[in-house]
Amino acid sequence: MANTLRFGPIAVPLSQAFFVSKHAFGLVNLKPTQPGHVLVVSRRPVARLGDLSPDEVADLFVQGQRVGRAVEKLHAADGLTLCVQDGAAAGQTVPHVHLHVIPRRPGDFADNDDVYRELESRVDNDRRQPRSAADMAAEAAVMRRELGDWDDAI
Amino acid sequence: MANTLRFGPIAVPLSQAFFVSKHAFGLVNLKPTQPGHVLVVSRRPVARLGDLSPDEVADLFVQGQRVGRAVEKLHAADGLTLCVQDGAAAGQTVPHVHLHVIPRRPGDFADNDDVYRELESRVDNDRRQPRSAADMAAEAAVMRRELGDWDDAI
Repeated sequence: MANTLRFGPIAVPLSQAFFVSKHAFGLVNLKPTQPGHVLVVSRRPVARLGDLSPDEVADLFVQGQRVGRAVEKLHAADGLTLCVQDGAAAGQTVPHVHLHVIPRRPGDFADNDDVYRELESRVDNDRRQPRSAADMAAEAAVMRRELGDWDDAI
Repeated sequence: MANTLRFGPIAVPLSQAFFVSKHAFGLVNLKPTQPGHVLVVSRRPVARLGDLSPDEVADLFVQGQRVGRAVEKLHAADGLTLCVQDGAAAGQTVPHVHLHVIPRRPGDFADNDDVYRELESRVDNDRRQPRSAADMAAEAAVMRRELGDWDDAI
């Protein structure tokens, strides 16, 4: 397996991934909106959900369910926001299909919809500091322990 | 097949549905945020995504992809917002797993995140008038024509 995973134009080090399945992988965020806000990304680097095969769609969201359970448990949350911004007109910033999985608690944002405001501005928002590689690797390691090691043979 | 489909506490007439698959069905909205904003609902009436089996998750989102293609085409859109509000803490108002599929165009909301504000307030928003049963049946008929008739034997 390569030492990096492709996310749009970015080569992401494996240390920032927390699972790899047949058609998807999980990534921690450089600038999460919330602790535990992670991404599930299609392995095939296509822009739109409609570009994926049914098997690829199924794996992306079955993995999303699994990842959602893990972040909800790890972050003692009461719910999840799961969202695909499918195309630039929907706020997509990296042209590569990815599912946002965000643990939620009552009152975690002043207005409930502020979670989406943060989501839309995820890449551009200068108020949020990018995290260090060490922080991201540490979060990925916690997620890997929760989910179980992936099969390197995939 | 029964004459109604269950969506939380609501018995929805089949005239408002536009597909029924093994584990999911498609519904038009009483108060859509946008023309073409529709729902894909799990047939088993459980509240949380984590309550579904992997087969149920897979069908929900594979159907969501199919429905997304249809609404994007029918509404001449450039993208889609696909979102599950999974639990009350995430803004879920009907405690029954459902995927929002919303066709998007550049500039369709003053701020891109206003789509979510509308989504959060979908049930309570008194500014939006509920549509007539005839309007909803007409939209469902257009969607059925686009998607192909469902198999009544399901």
